[in-house]
Amino acid sequence: MLRGGFVCHLGVVVDGDPMVVPTVYGFDSGQIYVHGSVASRSLTQGSTVCVTVTHVDGLVLARSVFEHGVNYRSAMIYGIPRLLEGPEKLEALRCLTEHTAPGQWDYARRPNRKELAATTILAISLQEASVKVRQGPPGDADDPHDVWAGVLPLAQAWQSPVPDALVTHPVPEHIRQRTGTSL
Amino acid sequence: MLRGGFVCHLGVVVDGDPMVVPTVYGFDSGQIYVHGSVASRSLTQGSTVCVTVTHVDGLVLARSVFEHGVNYRSAMIYGIPRLLEGPEKLEALRCLTEHTAPGQWDYARRPNRKELAATTILAISLQEASVKVRQGPPGDADDPHDVWAGVLPLAQAWQSPVPDALVTHPVPEHIRQRTGTSL
Repeated sequence: MLRGGFVCHLGVVVDGDPMVVPTVYGFDSGQIYVHGSVASRSLTQGSTVCVTVTHVDGLVLARSVFEHGVNYRSAMIYGIPRLLEGPEKLEALRCLTEHTAPGQWDYARRPNRKELAATTILAISLQEASVKVRQGPPGDADDPHDVWAGVLPLAQAWQSPVPDALVTHPVPEHIRQRTGTSL
Repeated sequence: MLRGGFVCHLGVVVDGDPMVVPTVYGFDSGQIYVHGSVASRSLTQGSTVCVTVTHVDGLVLARSVFEHGVNYRSAMIYGIPRLLEGPEKLEALRCLTEHTAPGQWDYARRPNRKELAATTILAISLQEASVKVRQGPPGDADDPHDVWAGVLPLAQAWQSPVPDALVTHPVPEHIRQRTGTSL
C-alpha cells in the first residue's frame, strides 16, 4: 500500500481544528517518514497525527446511483510523531528521497549541514494502522434497472522527463526508465 | 482546482485526534458537497472540518536533494459542515454524482426514498479556503553540482471501461468517451 505512492495527506489538530496537508513520505519496516514543517505546530504538544495514503483505482458505475462508488486502496496511520535529528534524520531523508525519486540520493547533491537543519522530518510508527480496500464490479447486479454497469479504471503514469532550461546533460538512465511506468 | 478531481481528503477531529478519510465530492459556486457517514461522528458537535483536494502534477528533480519537491495544486477548505436533508440533499447528490460520473444521474437508477435516507451528504461553504500551487522547474539552477535537472510529469488518465460479468448492453457514449482523457 505504501510502496505504490509518494504523497500522503497528513492530518493534524491545530487549535482544536483539523488541518489536512499533502506531503511526501518514505517508510521502512517500522515507521513512515513525512516531510515538512507543516506539522510542527502540533508537534510541540505531543499530539496524535493521522497519515492517510490513498490510491484511486477507478470509478464504480453501478445500475443504481446509490451503488456508485470508487475502487480504491487506502491506509490510515495514527501516531504521535517524533521530530528526527542527527544521523537518524539524514537516514530518514535518504529513505524518503529514494522512495520518491529512486537513484537521486546518489545522483543529486546531498544536503549540507545548513540544508539539513532547515529540513523537518517526522517519524510515525506503523504500529497503529488500518487499511481499507474496495475493488471489483458494482454490487447491484440484481438491480432490475437494466443498463450498462462496470468499472472505469483510472491509471497514473510517469511521462517523459522535462529538462530545465539550462541543462546540457542527457537524462540519466534512472530517471529516463520511469517514463511510461505506472505509479 | 475542484473541477479537476473527484476524491478529496476530509479531516475531522474525533475525541481530540485527527482522522483523515478519502471521499468523493461535488461542488457548486458556493459549497462543496462531500459524501459519507465518516464525518457524522464529529458532526454532532458542530465542529470544523478540513477538506483538502490535491492534484500531483510531477516530481521536481533538482540538482540538490534539498530542492527536490513536487509540482502540485492543492485546495484546503475549512468550515462547519451542514448535514443535508430533503430536496437539498437530493440536489447535492445529483451535483456530486454528475461531477464524479457525468451522465450517470440520467442513465442509472436514481435513489429511492430508502437509499436517500441511507446516504449522508455534507455541505461545506467555500468561503474559507486556501490554495497552494507549486509548478515549474527546480529552483536551484545556480547550484554548482552539474547534473541533469528537471521535472518528471505524472498524469492520470481514464482507461477502457470494464463491464461487469452480466452486462449485455454496449458501453454508453457518455462513459466510452472518457477513455483516454486525463483526470
